[in-house]
Amino acid sequence: MFPLRRVAILGVGMMGGSLGKALLKRDLAVEVIGYDADPAAVQLARQVGAVTHAAATAAEAVAAAELVVLAVPVQAACRLLREMAPYLSPGCLVTDLCSTKAAVTKAAEEALPAAAAFVGGHPMAGSEKTGVLAAEADLFENAIYILTGTASAELTAMQDLVWRLGGLPVVMTPEQHDRQVAAISHLPHLTAAVLVQTVAGLGETAELLSLAGGGFRDSTRIALGCPRMWKDICLSNRDNLLTMLDMFADRLSEVRQLVAQADAAGLLAYFAAAREVRQQVPLRGKGLLPLLYNLFVFVPDRPGLIGEVTGLLGEGGINIAEIELLRVREKTGGPLRLGFVTAAARDAAAEILQTAGLRVERQEE
Amino acid sequence: MFPLRRVAILGVGMMGGSLGKALLKRDLAVEVIGYDADPAAVQLARQVGAVTHAAATAAEAVAAAELVVLAVPVQAACRLLREMAPYLSPGCLVTDLCSTKAAVTKAAEEALPAAAAFVGGHPMAGSEKTGVLAAEADLFENAIYILTGTASAELTAMQDLVWRLGGLPVVMTPEQHDRQVAAISHLPHLTAAVLVQTVAGLGETAELLSLAGGGFRDSTRIALGCPRMWKDICLSNRDNLLTMLDMFADRLSEVRQLVAQADAAGLLAYFAAAREVRQQVPLRGKGLLPLLYNLFVFVPDRPGLIGEVTGLLGEGGINIAEIELLRVREKTGGPLRLGFVTAAARDAAAEILQTAGLRVERQEE
Repeated sequence: MFPLRRVAILGVGMMGGSLGKALLKRDLAVEVIGYDADPAAVQLARQVGAVTHAAATAAEAVAAAELVVLAVPVQAACRLLREMAPYLSPGCLVTDLCSTKAAVTKAAEEALPAAAAFVGGHPMAGSEKTGVLAAEADLFENAIYILTGTASAELTAMQDLVWRLGGLPVVMTPEQHDRQVAAISHLPHLTAAVLVQTVAGLGETAELLSLAGGGFRDSTRIALGCPRMWKDICLSNRDNLLTMLDMFADRLSEVRQLVAQADAAGLLAYFAAAREVRQQVPLRGKGLLPLLYNLFVFVPDRPGLIGEVTGLLGEGGINIAEIELLRVREKTGGPLRLGFVTAAARDAAAEILQTAGLRVERQEE
Repeated sequence: MFPLRRVAILGVGMMGGSLGKALLKRDLAVEVIGYDADPAAVQLARQVGAVTHAAATAAEAVAAAELVVLAVPVQAACRLLREMAPYLSPGCLVTDLCSTKAAVTKAAEEALPAAAAFVGGHPMAGSEKTGVLAAEADLFENAIYILTGTASAELTAMQDLVWRLGGLPVVMTPEQHDRQVAAISHLPHLTAAVLVQTVAGLGETAELLSLAGGGFRDSTRIALGCPRMWKDICLSNRDNLLTMLDMFADRLSEVRQLVAQADAAGLLAYFAAAREVRQQVPLRGKGLLPLLYNLFVFVPDRPGLIGEVTGLLGEGGINIAEIELLRVREKTGGPLRLGFVTAAARDAAAEILQTAGLRVERQEE
């Protein structure tokens, strides 16, 4: 099956562009035809090597394509499905990269001819960045890539493709997908935003934020995400998200009651149960944001320390994905937090720093 | 005033032990007398150099002490205040390390003789670890250390002590303190636990948790904290926490309404406002800590780059006060934030980095 002779990517932003680059870099496609509502974006995509050819219309792009990828937001994907359906080649496989799956699956069932097949896709590897200039051939590496559909030759082909892209395919129904991401991804974003807004609503915001330790920072970091993207996600997964918000509100009022009643045993059991569940989060896998492996470096604060630590790791060829000097310590960790993309990099960094006489500690994850 | 001739530390766990080590390491005290309800803990504290002498009773410990530190949980601190009050030397200064301030301040006002003074303290530096073996002489370095009380010679003395410990003293009233930590520390812990419990309540927990990306992991990490400690905190700051829970619930129902009404503009504004507030976290609040002058460096991501940047500035004699590589997708370079104490240092750094071919941007102040 591989390389595919011709793949059409409709929408050449960061996600579509990354897929094009990945297909070409890994020799999974000979020709990648790009289409975008913005003609300049397609030209740019061709210039940066995300596609091999530019098409002026969706119809032109999908003609003779074995695989068609919808790399646009949900509403646009539903429109494009209807628009391009008459021009698909017999035997064509259509997939998408949308962050919710029920609506686009329904549109595909209604719009596609019998000779074409649809398998939904959601690579859980987003970015706050937009546009083809932010596209990366390695975006899908080690990322969970959800596929929706029932057992079929086309589903098997998509699983194969995801493996070849370096991703980790996970199969479920569109409804399962939308419900699960509402709980594990969309709800936490909303509660993080609500937490920030609660603090902002108290007045004395600057004073309060200056007291923010690791707890507040961690639990609200996701609120730094792109407002437009999260707005779209909320709207496209509205019903599931409302269900999750209501369940969260119920649980919140349960814990409020434990506090109001000063129920020591109840609170202890509640926190213990929450900790036990949280400890079950698997070590591997990454979702909408990359998981980082954190290392705390415990050293007295002195001039040159940061340069010393980063210099040692640079000499060792180790890439620091995130670095944070913690002014406010809260219950865990030391003054300098280093984040790494892999556990191996974290461990190698730990060894280098220990050899240099620094005390380090891996963050419990 | 320094070194103090005799300091009594009541409770030689991680916090009390760290204070003892810090006082001795920095020559701020000649004798540190330890007392603990567990006699073995005091002996251990002496063996590891956290105290110089062990006392068998609180009364024995505080006799002739210039400074008495209550390093036990709130309820125990209130009890100890009453117990030891008759044995305090005239002119003695009493402080504590409790995580809430109103209750212990009230107990001190009731129990202490007129000849003793009380200044509340809350070093915002902790650990999930417990026990004197986890004590660190450097625990207070760069940590915000809240002091509660009104202007007095004793408050000034405590501010001086905190500076000498390497900490950053911040003064407020006990009520302000308890309200602010309820918002910035206690509320996030509760919502993290509620988030975990919401997911756990859906069934399919293992499957759901396997999809957990950085967002869920970050926003629930604090739920890994010690259940007993958080139960105590909830109970000792109950009224403030209930207020915060109610404010959070109100904000939650506001955002629920935006979702239910599919209010795109409202959601966009909500998320944008939350992001804007959250972006203020790493910056320092006016009046609490010095404002830093920030420089963003647009770094391509490659091993050693952070070391290169810090090395260039080190050669130029420029001290970096704060460094943060903002959360990015793996393999995509993100803006590196450098904080400087003066605008001149920030500008000199900008010139050095630009000369080296890096793109930089000053943060608007």
